[in-house]
Amino acid sequence: MGIVVQKYGGTSVAGVERIKVVAERIAKSAAEGNDMVVVVSAMGKATDELVKLANEISTVPHAREMDMLLSAGERISMALLSMALNEMGHDAVSFTGSQAGIMTDASHTKARIVEVRAHRIEKALAAGRIVIVAGFQGVSSEKDITTLGRGGSDTTAVALAAALNAEVCEIYTDVTGVYTADPRIIPNARKLNEVTYEEMLEMAASGAGVLSLRSVEFARTHGVVIHCRSSFTDQTGTVIKEEVEQVEKALVTAVSQDTSEAMIRVDGVPDRPGVAARIFSDIAKERINVDMIVQNISHDGKTDLTFTMPKEDLIRSGDAIRRIVADIGAEGFSADSDIAKLSLIGAGMKTDPGVAAEMFSALAEAGINIEMISTSSIRISCVVRSMDINRAVTIIHEHFGLAGEPSMASVGQP
Amino acid sequence: MGIVVQKYGGTSVAGVERIKVVAERIAKSAAEGNDMVVVVSAMGKATDELVKLANEISTVPHAREMDMLLSAGERISMALLSMALNEMGHDAVSFTGSQAGIMTDASHTKARIVEVRAHRIEKALAAGRIVIVAGFQGVSSEKDITTLGRGGSDTTAVALAAALNAEVCEIYTDVTGVYTADPRIIPNARKLNEVTYEEMLEMAASGAGVLSLRSVEFARTHGVVIHCRSSFTDQTGTVIKEEVEQVEKALVTAVSQDTSEAMIRVDGVPDRPGVAARIFSDIAKERINVDMIVQNISHDGKTDLTFTMPKEDLIRSGDAIRRIVADIGAEGFSADSDIAKLSLIGAGMKTDPGVAAEMFSALAEAGINIEMISTSSIRISCVVRSMDINRAVTIIHEHFGLAGEPSMASVGQP
Repeated sequence: MGIVVQKYGGTSVAGVERIKVVAERIAKSAAEGNDMVVVVSAMGKATDELVKLANEISTVPHAREMDMLLSAGERISMALLSMALNEMGHDAVSFTGSQAGIMTDASHTKARIVEVRAHRIEKALAAGRIVIVAGFQGVSSEKDITTLGRGGSDTTAVALAAALNAEVCEIYTDVTGVYTADPRIIPNARKLNEVTYEEMLEMAASGAGVLSLRSVEFARTHGVVIHCRSSFTDQTGTVIKEEVEQVEKALVTAVSQDTSEAMIRVDGVPDRPGVAARIFSDIAKERINVDMIVQNISHDGKTDLTFTMPKEDLIRSGDAIRRIVADIGAEGFSADSDIAKLSLIGAGMKTDPGVAAEMFSALAEAGINIEMISTSSIRISCVVRSMDINRAVTIIHEHFGLAGEPSMASVGQP
Repeated sequence: MGIVVQKYGGTSVAGVERIKVVAERIAKSAAEGNDMVVVVSAMGKATDELVKLANEISTVPHAREMDMLLSAGERISMALLSMALNEMGHDAVSFTGSQAGIMTDASHTKARIVEVRAHRIEKALAAGRIVIVAGFQGVSSEKDITTLGRGGSDTTAVALAAALNAEVCEIYTDVTGVYTADPRIIPNARKLNEVTYEEMLEMAASGAGVLSLRSVEFARTHGVVIHCRSSFTDQTGTVIKEEVEQVEKALVTAVSQDTSEAMIRVDGVPDRPGVAARIFSDIAKERINVDMIVQNISHDGKTDLTFTMPKEDLIRSGDAIRRIVADIGAEGFSADSDIAKLSLIGAGMKTDPGVAAEMFSALAEAGINIEMISTSSIRISCVVRSMDINRAVTIIHEHFGLAGEPSMASVGQP
C-alpha cells in the first residue's frame, strides 16, 4: 500500500450530499491501507458564479485579485469535505494550494507550477491523517495567490502525485472514463481500459475534454499513472500510462471532434521566403493560439494561407489580423466559424501508413468534403463543415470498428 | 495626513453596487491624502450561509476546518472591492489575514490576536497602494487559518490601526453611530458625538451591539481612536476615545438593554464558606459565561444563589448545572428565560452616588419590579421581566433627559 492521490471535480462535490458520498469513497480507500491525498475543485458552478460577480465590477478584472477571488471556491469545498471526514471519525486536514506547497510562477489566472514543496503534506500523512488539498491554486514566490487556469485541479493532482511518488493519481469526474468517441454523439462508443500518454495528449488537444492537456503532459514528464473514473459508480475507468499492456496493439484508439475553432484564410499572400514565418510570429505576439496551418501551392507569385484558431479569440484578434495582413501586403482575409475538426488517434498508426488514406476514402464515400488536413505520428485531423461533424465521427468510428473490440490491423497496405 | 484604517461590515459590502459605493468612499479619503488600509467583512449573509452548509455536514463542525471554510467569505469581498478600486484607476491590493500578518493563537473559531506583522502592508502603503485586508481572520504559529469570532473584523481593524499607528480607525456599519438608547425602541434617542472607552465597554457588555467588546478593549489598551459611522451617509458618527472634551461632564450617557440572558436560581444552598466559589469555578470549567450573581441572606443555614448566563448556552449546560447542584447538596434549581437587563451608563456617575437610587425610584414609580442589581463605577444594571424592558428603557431614557441635551447634574443628593 502506498500513497493514492484522488481528484474530485466540481460536479462530484456539487452539494452537501455529494460531498458526503465522496467522503465515503475516500474513507473506503483509506481503509484499504492507502495514504490518501485528495484534491478538490470548487463546488459545482461556484467558480462560474465568482467570475460573474467579478465581471459585474470589471470587464477585465485585475488578474491578481481575480486569483484571490477564485481561490475562495476550493477553500469552501475542501473545508466541507474535511469536516465530513472528521464527522465520520477520520482525522482529516485541508490545505490551501499555498499550505500544500504548490509553488507557481507569477502569471496570474494561468500560472504554472514550478515546484511542489510537499513537506507539510508528508508530515500530515506520517501522522496518519487524510489530506485534502485545494486544486487549481498555488502561491507565487512573491507570496501572492495564483490560479492555474481551466483544468488546473487535474494538474494539481498530477503534480502532487509526482512529488509524493504516489502509486496512482485517480481523477474522478462525471464520466466513467475515456471513450473511443464522445458518447453523447456515438451511443455505442466503447470505454477504453488503457490509453498511452501520447494518445491521451493527442485526444486532449483534439477536443476530448475529459482531462486537461497540461495535466497529461505533466503526467507523461513525471511518469504519473492516471486513473480517470467516475465518482458516481465503482466501475474501473481508463488508465493512462506509458506502456499499454496488450499483446496486439490496436491500430486506432479513438475518434474525437472539436467545434471550438474557426478557420482564417489569408488571400493573395506574396510568396516570398519568410513571409509565413513573419505572419505567424506576429500572430504569436498577439497571443493568438494557432492550431492547424495549410499553405496552398503558389500561383503567379501569390499564395493562400489558411489556419485555425479558437473561436473565442476571434473578436479580440480581428484588428491584429487585419493589421498583419496589411503589413505583409496580402490581398485580404476571411473568417469561417462553421468548421469542425475530426481527429483519429492511435499509437498503432506509427507503424501503419495506410490509416490516413482509409480515413479520407471513408469520408469521401460519405460525401464529406475535407478542407484542411494535419497529422502527427499517431493522429490524423481533418477540418470539415461543422454540420457534417457528427456524421463524420459516426462514419469513422464505425469504419474502424471502434464500437466492438478494438480493430486489429483491419486496414491493409496503402 | 497619515494612515486611516476603515472597516466595512457585511451590510456595507452586501452586493456589487454597494461594493462600488464603498470603493468611491475609499477613493475620496485617499484623494484627501490619507494612506488607506481597509478591513472588510464577508458580503451580507455569506458567513451565515457557510455556517449553514457546515451544519448540514456536522452538528459540531471540526473547528480548524470551520475556520478554513469561513475565511473564504472575506476573500471574496476583499478581492471584489480591490477589483472595483483597480477598475476606477487606483492601485489597490488585497491581503488575507495571513498575508496582512494577523498572527493569532491556535484557538480556532475564537482566536486572539497575539501580534501584527504589518511589514507587507507597510511596503504596499509606501508604494502608494490602497490596502484591502480580510477582517475576522488570522493565522496561527502552526500556519493554520484561524478566525476571531463574532465581531472579529472590528478587532482586526483596531489591531491594524494600533500596529500602523493610524490617525483613526473608522468602523462603518449600518447605523450612524452610538445612541443614548436603541433607536428601534426609543425613536428620539440622541446620537452621541463622543464616548469614552470605559463607557463604550460597559455599553458593549450591556447589549449595545454596535461595536464588539473585544475591539473596544483592544482600542483602549492601545489608545486607538475609533470613529463609528454609517457607510450609507456622510454624517459624522460617534468618536470613541480616552478623554471626552466637554466642559461639563454628562452625568449619564446612555441606556441599553440586553434580552439575551437567562436567570438561574439555585435553591437551598448549604451556607458553608467556599460554596459559592465551588459552584462558580465548576461552572467556569463548563465554559458557561456567567454575568450577574446575587446571593441572598442566609436563612436556617441555607441560602439562594441567582446568576445570569446566555440563553443560547442553556440547553448545552443543563446537565452540567444539574450535576453541580447535586454535588454541593443544594435543593434544586430553576431557569427563567423571561428576563431582561436594563443598564444605565455614564462616566459622570463616578462622582455622583445618587444615580442608582434615582434609577430604582423611577422604576418603582412605574411599577416595574427589579429582580437583580449589579453595578460598576460607571454602570448600574437591573434585571426586570422581559415584558417590562421596553417600558423600562423608555422611562429611564426620559427620566435622565437623554433625548435632549445631555443631563447635567439633574440628579441631586441621594
